[in-house]
Amino acid sequence: LARIALDAMGGDFAPRATVSGALQALAELDPAHSIQLVGRAGDIERELQGLLAGELAQLAGHRARLEVVDAADVVDMAEKPSAAVRGKPNSSMMLGLKLQADGRSDGFVSAGNTGAQMAGSLVILRLHQGLSRPAIPTVFPTAKHPVVVLDSGANVDCSAEELVQFARIGSVYAEDVLRRRNPGVGLLNIGEEPEKGNAVVKEAHQLLERAGVNFMGNVEGRDILKGENDKGSIDVVVCDGFVGNVLLKFYEQVAPMIIGLLQGAGVTPEQLQGALKQLDYANYGGAPLLGVRGVSIICHGKSSPRAIKNGVKAAVQAVESRMSEHIGRRLSEGASGAAA
Amino acid sequence: LARIALDAMGGDFAPRATVSGALQALAELDPAHSIQLVGRAGDIERELQGLLAGELAQLAGHRARLEVVDAADVVDMAEKPSAAVRGKPNSSMMLGLKLQADGRSDGFVSAGNTGAQMAGSLVILRLHQGLSRPAIPTVFPTAKHPVVVLDSGANVDCSAEELVQFARIGSVYAEDVLRRRNPGVGLLNIGEEPEKGNAVVKEAHQLLERAGVNFMGNVEGRDILKGENDKGSIDVVVCDGFVGNVLLKFYEQVAPMIIGLLQGAGVTPEQLQGALKQLDYANYGGAPLLGVRGVSIICHGKSSPRAIKNGVKAAVQAVESRMSEHIGRRLSEGASGAAA
Repeated sequence: LARIALDAMGGDFAPRATVSGALQALAELDPAHSIQLVGRAGDIERELQGLLAGELAQLAGHRARLEVVDAADVVDMAEKPSAAVRGKPNSSMMLGLKLQADGRSDGFVSAGNTGAQMAGSLVILRLHQGLSRPAIPTVFPTAKHPVVVLDSGANVDCSAEELVQFARIGSVYAEDVLRRRNPGVGLLNIGEEPEKGNAVVKEAHQLLERAGVNFMGNVEGRDILKGENDKGSIDVVVCDGFVGNVLLKFYEQVAPMIIGLLQGAGVTPEQLQGALKQLDYANYGGAPLLGVRGVSIICHGKSSPRAIKNGVKAAVQAVESRMSEHIGRRLSEGASGAAA
Repeated sequence: LARIALDAMGGDFAPRATVSGALQALAELDPAHSIQLVGRAGDIERELQGLLAGELAQLAGHRARLEVVDAADVVDMAEKPSAAVRGKPNSSMMLGLKLQADGRSDGFVSAGNTGAQMAGSLVILRLHQGLSRPAIPTVFPTAKHPVVVLDSGANVDCSAEELVQFARIGSVYAEDVLRRRNPGVGLLNIGEEPEKGNAVVKEAHQLLERAGVNFMGNVEGRDILKGENDKGSIDVVVCDGFVGNVLLKFYEQVAPMIIGLLQGAGVTPEQLQGALKQLDYANYGGAPLLGVRGVSIICHGKSSPRAIKNGVKAAVQAVESRMSEHIGRRLSEGASGAAA
């Protein structure tokens, strides 16, 4: 029952990759769900016709669940976010977000200009009460279970109180999207002891003890990939967006490097594919901008059709689990808990 | 011609691992080099006799290059650094450092209490002029060439000027120990553009442009493992000790995780060993505390004899390349360059 607006013009390979990904998502989703392709109607129709007459002909039955929403403008990948929000209200990105604010759509997905998507989401969807900033979670594949790391890039400097906010909204994300019960939250730090770390992290440690989350204490870099620390299972790791972004990009490069090394040693591609497929980021689609009142899924600029497909599926899951509503409720509980 | 003092009592497996590692290092080093085993003489002699009568009997010829230096006290792994420096001048750690200050030794290696080693090195060896803090570099194995990341844990909060100091001393380390000519220095950040990042990193970017190092601009997490960014080869990556420590511990966990996944997929141990041996941290021995006037090598508490051996070899290399002297000279050049 989710209506997902997809920025058909966003990303390095749009609109081919976005239209193709939309059709592939519909083929895998429950028939109750539909997609709004937002962008230049002529370009979108042309791609649709080409794909349905060619490589995706077998998906023609899903065409009826696609609505094309015309948007005259496109936000450029290098455009300044504030300029895009103010100057391009009729862009595929801003119109796609507006559909949700108007109650005509349930979620938004884009592989376009990330800064513009963040700014537009803040202005058009607005933040939940109890938050000073949104956050972007990233799901880190591990040998045990995927672990959510947030913030992974929206905020370069964070206060202790903001790290607590990330713990609250990251917990809801782990419950609604990763289906964890009572998710364990770790604070990323350089040692286990509460007195370790810089001033912000030390203060956050104290605040998290009484923040209404399942706080498991500090986690170190190694604990992320273990999915646990000495106190138990870790589902959510909280850190500022500088550290989170560096870690994310570092980790993205690990699998390609390992694959190169192993192929040099004569390991077969089949063995590799089987072993490492759980480390493939494309499995996890886009990342939601957590904290806004609605669903705004940020995809990588280089998204393939498969990545777009998984981004749409991520939006459906966020809508169906009512994640945004749960975040709003959790934050009001957190605020009252702190006041009590 | 290097005389290396080894803290025989330091580390979880001391003195067995330290004495064994010392003998193995002597067997591989040029016969001109010698080792001072600093610690409880009775314990050390007992280990020596046991090892030379047993598993290391073939190394008996190297016994003459070992000197046992008696030290009554031992710094505990959990002891407060300041208490160890003030209260235990006759510990193996403080005496081992003092040998160097007195001109009786050329380098110091320990797998003991890292905080105490840092504090003792600062007090006994003292900092080079031009520095406000020492830094710990970590060599990150990559598919291309090893990359030095610093600081990796000595400093949780750093100023822009301190990041510049790390760039200077990290460059000397890359020249003297990794044998790189004109090493490329990258500033770890969340984007390529100079205006990205938090306030400290933005200021550091400006300062690094005229710091007398081969500055290659920003590097992102992924560029570390590539050993290059768009501008060219990267040998040194500069960051604060919080980010560096998180990254280091994260990376240490990558290889064990990948090995587990691949073995589950039927890749043979021989294939794995061949492919991943260049990612083994134990290859790189300990890390020097950069900035002190002398050589102080910090080893992991869980050091095996092989890790101790490589720590001693790292000390020899630092002594032979006259790294500390080069750091002092580079810093005085940097200071005059900035004044000019």
